[in-house]
Amino acid sequence: MKLKPRSISRYRFQKNYEVKFRKPQRRLATALVAFTLMMFSQLSAFSQEKPRMIRIARIVVDSAQLENYKAALREGIETAVRVEPGVLSLSAVYEKQHPTHVTVFEIYADEDAYKAHIQTAHFKKYKNTVKDMVKSLELVDVSPIAMEAKPKM
Amino acid sequence: MKLKPRSISRYRFQKNYEVKFRKPQRRLATALVAFTLMMFSQLSAFSQEKPRMIRIARIVVDSAQLENYKAALREGIETAVRVEPGVLSLSAVYEKQHPTHVTVFEIYADEDAYKAHIQTAHFKKYKNTVKDMVKSLELVDVSPIAMEAKPKM
Repeated sequence: MKLKPRSISRYRFQKNYEVKFRKPQRRLATALVAFTLMMFSQLSAFSQEKPRMIRIARIVVDSAQLENYKAALREGIETAVRVEPGVLSLSAVYEKQHPTHVTVFEIYADEDAYKAHIQTAHFKKYKNTVKDMVKSLELVDVSPIAMEAKPKM
Repeated sequence: MKLKPRSISRYRFQKNYEVKFRKPQRRLATALVAFTLMMFSQLSAFSQEKPRMIRIARIVVDSAQLENYKAALREGIETAVRVEPGVLSLSAVYEKQHPTHVTVFEIYADEDAYKAHIQTAHFKKYKNTVKDMVKSLELVDVSPIAMEAKPKM
């Protein structure tokens, strides 16, 4: 089809118009695409984010081996939090009224981080060291209600 | 007693010797005094530092009021950690297998911080709100074995 002169003229005008605003348009288009991709990736990250795994371990220790047990637990905890990215927090305490009653409050990034933790050499060393020191062990999986802490502790 | 010429000479020499090294000596003396004072203040701070108060609260909640209880606990915790300098960390969880069984892991700067906490308006409001929701409450004072956490949580 042959274009009429008027059409050609309009086309040329549009071409000029487009050329004039090409750079800002491209920038806007790029920004919109980037924004859309970002939103999708955020949504995707949100939907794929695994919940943290929180657990309370209640341990009763042989009183004759309490100090050895504490030393092994301390070493295991310090190593795990230092070297494992997914071990977020391990807090071990003993009851003042019943010093053989130990509680460990454990926070892992997710269940995979916990699964990786129990396969580490330091965890296996801890388990092996304490196997004859522990009289009972109860593992209680919990969900958070509120977890608040000062920024610097 | 009259000093002999030799003694005077030696005295003068010592005076000159002292004068010659007066500034460095003063600096050294100042540094030693500062260091000693610093060590004493450190020792003093260490000996006077009150231990953190750590407690585990084990709460059984009326199942019919569990959601209301969680909301009240959440509000109480968020307010306490935000406004009280001595409330370092409050972590509340419920057992997945027994959702009415709630545990709060509490860390206060010291016992005075805890005493101040239970006198606050927000704590009294929480206690009043939940008084008919709580079936049992066990407060267990504990001592730390190891408390490790990632720097940024």
